[in-house]
Amino acid sequence: MISSASGRQVRLVEKLNRQAKARRENGLFVAEGRKEVLEAPVPRIEEVYFTAAAGDTAEALVKKGVRPDALQEVSPEVFRKMADTQTPQGILALVKIRRSSVKELLQVSFDKPPLFLVLEDLQDPGNVGTILRMSEAAGVTGVIVSRNTADLYSPKTVRATMGAVYRVKSAETSDVAETVRELNRLGVQTCAAWLPGSVSYTEPDYRKATAFIIGNEGNGLRKETADAADLRIRIPMQGGVESLNAAVAATVLAYEAARQRLLS
Amino acid sequence: MISSASGRQVRLVEKLNRQAKARRENGLFVAEGRKEVLEAPVPRIEEVYFTAAAGDTAEALVKKGVRPDALQEVSPEVFRKMADTQTPQGILALVKIRRSSVKELLQVSFDKPPLFLVLEDLQDPGNVGTILRMSEAAGVTGVIVSRNTADLYSPKTVRATMGAVYRVKSAETSDVAETVRELNRLGVQTCAAWLPGSVSYTEPDYRKATAFIIGNEGNGLRKETADAADLRIRIPMQGGVESLNAAVAATVLAYEAARQRLLS
Repeated sequence: MISSASGRQVRLVEKLNRQAKARRENGLFVAEGRKEVLEAPVPRIEEVYFTAAAGDTAEALVKKGVRPDALQEVSPEVFRKMADTQTPQGILALVKIRRSSVKELLQVSFDKPPLFLVLEDLQDPGNVGTILRMSEAAGVTGVIVSRNTADLYSPKTVRATMGAVYRVKSAETSDVAETVRELNRLGVQTCAAWLPGSVSYTEPDYRKATAFIIGNEGNGLRKETADAADLRIRIPMQGGVESLNAAVAATVLAYEAARQRLLS
Repeated sequence: MISSASGRQVRLVEKLNRQAKARRENGLFVAEGRKEVLEAPVPRIEEVYFTAAAGDTAEALVKKGVRPDALQEVSPEVFRKMADTQTPQGILALVKIRRSSVKELLQVSFDKPPLFLVLEDLQDPGNVGTILRMSEAAGVTGVIVSRNTADLYSPKTVRATMGAVYRVKSAETSDVAETVRELNRLGVQTCAAWLPGSVSYTEPDYRKATAFIIGNEGNGLRKETADAADLRIRIPMQGGVESLNAAVAATVLAYEAARQRLLS
């Protein structure tokens, strides 16, 4: 029991919940909740904190192979300090972040044509999490995010991914336009979601290696990024709508690629 | 100036922000922010509260035809009490709710085959708002929500719709299965999004009158509702994903219908 401890561990968890910088420096993020903890890959679980109420989940983790000394029971009071949610389930794990470089992410076999998503400066953690979850379902090979995109490992994003954060490969780029050019050099068809685009998203053949590039919620893609792409595609919109939510746009594109690939 | 007033008006706005019941009883909702207020249909604007900082937007409203006596300047302190957002822009309007009955909503011409969305017990206001915004873009004729779906007129939902709340027709039903049967009687092809469904969503012909029925985020559709539909369709999912976010599922379906209709 560390129920009296307001020590190093509590402060670390609080920091990992709040600061992308702390997550980056420690190479760890917080997975909170029974389902989230049970879905975490065992070798990546560093520490687990739980209250007596979640003792059964803690036992299940040990049965799955988590080292018993990685688990620590804490009092409900201590857990509330560590928890990000309003009604905590009484268990959280510190999980190792696995970030590929863009280069590693792109070293995939082209026998089965890969499908990439590139996200430029998305700000909403819920959107980013929803996109990760949708990406796994649509068969996306990997997601590349710009340095200024909302952190993939914030508590809100992790929750919105519903476990996909453990399974979808991701990488970070500090230069989205250069990443698009790198994709072009590798023979990947790059398609920028672009409101004034002249090609409807239904026209291209996405059965070949393809990357979709999605821009910021408010401003869309930077022009340099859109210019770097092979195609600037538009999603037809009816009514008075000025733009689509970024997660909605990513869904329309990724599922059109999935549809074409499933039918072929 | 009602800067000293903590009176009836302030309390009404606070209640309209917080309680679906108050919105229903008063037939009003709060549109907060410059863009939201400017997009509101003039005949539906009942009252406008603004601070000196948003005086230009208030003037623009009068130019658009809002009665000058509907506008009231308040102090920043009073406005902060009325505001739902963290960093208010200093203007909000009370807007009349326009809710059709299901019967009215379904009285549309079938010359251009209608496309309906039916939402059963969706809980997340952001999801509901995103679906409304996407629906307008995809050319959805009307959205029918179950009585237990998150209120279309909560501040969070209104913001997420980005103005679509003013333009997309909606109705409420207390019996979703019965609404599905009513759609069937009218000759509308009803398609329930159903995880164990046997028909891929890419197979049906959505160029005819169609309704998609989408279930609750955690539990999906009630069996009675799915059974009432003509078709139980599934969206193929790869990887370890157990389900799709409700707004993602609605997007995949509505945009597949839009795609088929645009190509035909």
